[in-house]
Amino acid sequence: MVIDTIRKIYAEVGADALVTREDDLRFYLTRFSSSFGIVVADGDGIVFYTDSRYLEAAQKSLKDDGIEVREYPRGAKLGELLKGYKTLGMSLGRISASNYLSLKESGFEIVDSLGAFESAMAVKRDDEIADISLACKATDRAYLELLGKIKEGMTENEVAALLEYLMRKNGASGTSFSTICAFGANGSVPHHETGNTKLKFGDAVLIDFGCKVNGYCSDCTRTFLFGDDGNHAEFKDIYEKVLTAHMLVKEQFTCGMTGRQGDAIARDYFAKFGLDKYFTHSLGHSLGVNIHETPSLSPNEERTFSDGMVFSDEPGIYLAGKLGIRIEDTVTLKGGKVVSLTDSDKKLLII
Amino acid sequence: MVIDTIRKIYAEVGADALVTREDDLRFYLTRFSSSFGIVVADGDGIVFYTDSRYLEAAQKSLKDDGIEVREYPRGAKLGELLKGYKTLGMSLGRISASNYLSLKESGFEIVDSLGAFESAMAVKRDDEIADISLACKATDRAYLELLGKIKEGMTENEVAALLEYLMRKNGASGTSFSTICAFGANGSVPHHETGNTKLKFGDAVLIDFGCKVNGYCSDCTRTFLFGDDGNHAEFKDIYEKVLTAHMLVKEQFTCGMTGRQGDAIARDYFAKFGLDKYFTHSLGHSLGVNIHETPSLSPNEERTFSDGMVFSDEPGIYLAGKLGIRIEDTVTLKGGKVVSLTDSDKKLLII
Repeated sequence: MVIDTIRKIYAEVGADALVTREDDLRFYLTRFSSSFGIVVADGDGIVFYTDSRYLEAAQKSLKDDGIEVREYPRGAKLGELLKGYKTLGMSLGRISASNYLSLKESGFEIVDSLGAFESAMAVKRDDEIADISLACKATDRAYLELLGKIKEGMTENEVAALLEYLMRKNGASGTSFSTICAFGANGSVPHHETGNTKLKFGDAVLIDFGCKVNGYCSDCTRTFLFGDDGNHAEFKDIYEKVLTAHMLVKEQFTCGMTGRQGDAIARDYFAKFGLDKYFTHSLGHSLGVNIHETPSLSPNEERTFSDGMVFSDEPGIYLAGKLGIRIEDTVTLKGGKVVSLTDSDKKLLII
Repeated sequence: MVIDTIRKIYAEVGADALVTREDDLRFYLTRFSSSFGIVVADGDGIVFYTDSRYLEAAQKSLKDDGIEVREYPRGAKLGELLKGYKTLGMSLGRISASNYLSLKESGFEIVDSLGAFESAMAVKRDDEIADISLACKATDRAYLELLGKIKEGMTENEVAALLEYLMRKNGASGTSFSTICAFGANGSVPHHETGNTKLKFGDAVLIDFGCKVNGYCSDCTRTFLFGDDGNHAEFKDIYEKVLTAHMLVKEQFTCGMTGRQGDAIARDYFAKFGLDKYFTHSLGHSLGVNIHETPSLSPNEERTFSDGMVFSDEPGIYLAGKLGIRIEDTVTLKGGKVVSLTDSDKKLLII
């Protein structure tokens, strides 16, 4: 399990010690959640250093994983703890310049570990997919419960707050990103800042939401109508095209394809109707411990996908000041097929 | 307003250009919330670079502040954008080692800006205190509403979820940190991970919670009894001592005192009863854009406090496996007096 992951990354980096302090990477290596800790892996073993607050819980959680837990020596500089090593594997894109400079001054050579982390994190273990699935189920359940509770006059903030509450009630520890809730034309801004616009009859509603369970993320977007005022012919037409693009990706994307090829499935379909210029973002992104991981599904992504990768399939069309429609599921590749992990109904809903 | 803040930090750092990319520092300089942007300030003016998603909103938000908004040139490296400068003021404790190395390779000298940011951010402007006050009011209101809704059998997670929902309903955009909710002996772990323990008659309840309004944080802790089963003599005794420690800080702490002296007001009081060894954390921390800022109120803090600083006053006593009591308000110094910004009742409550 995690120990194999650590050994694999250690071997790939090829430094004397793999030293990991960043919250998300440390959680990935240990599945133990804490606000302070350092994982030091070398050829002999793996040690998790933390402070007194977490010692007992860490020992309980990590002993079956073959990870030794030690108290971080009070006031010690990292360089003192690592004395004896010459080369350290650390993530240059994540450690601060001041940490880097202080370790260099102490005579260490730093080897970048980020690439090895990214490759390892891209392909999820079964236990990771299980937790992402739990987060996706909480997301689906909360959405269904929300639909019965949305009322005219509620603000975007109220709907977002209610949805977040329902995800928590369904087992989430919190959100995986700031919930986007957009009424009417607000949906045409892909990153609309949820505000105090009030819901009225005939509004389109776009919600982009996700939660965390056991440290793993979900991500989902639904667009629906709050009553049909008869002015939604264009909306309905585009909705069907976005849904078709979303489903085409699920049917056609498979192992060995690049992120660019995945993105092109949706983009080329939109191009048939001259709509591709309104698809103003990428098709999707990987997710796991973090809501945005690599590889992405975007026009410049040449990395290929394989079984066990988890990513979003989220085509969208945005007509400025008029409408925005995005349909997103969190999905995984299994046996070369795209399997949906969030899976609430995507037929156009008029509530 | 913000432009004076930027000019002050620029002058203090003394580099050709002050270059700020980190989300929180960039928000501090602009009060404009975005997921991508760079603020470049030099002797001639201030430019905010961002991408197409934010251009329009940034222009509207920043034009009265005398900050020019430009689109970040697609695909450009930061070094190209900064051509012409020799020295760059950046936060070495926050920029990544890889960004640092890449700028050094392009020939730039980097001057650390973090100290100047920390000094500036420690003393809040009136508009910042106004927003922190709004966050504190939402926190207080949500707490009062929560008290009427807590029922036997609810889990810690449910209570936390409900409280977060109520803060959102009262105007918050989200939480300022993960809500801690601890029932019974769980309260004796200062950083208890909110879980599925169910509330029962006679339990003590400790909740540590806060929210964000307009990008600024609040922080509050209350401990109360869910019914009195007659076994709380020690709890009540210690509660009074924690509350006295909390109030003594409010009475005695003033401008010119160090964080160490502030911490000692509570710690020395506990020592009279031999309780200081159970006060296992610092008295408090500054807060603002971030939930943890400097200076702190702790045994090693030699920096002094002054009017306009905003910080937590949060003494606590923890008897392992038995009880935990913490009472916390967000406060500010005004005219040399501590003024409470969160201010719900702190008398021992038995609901």
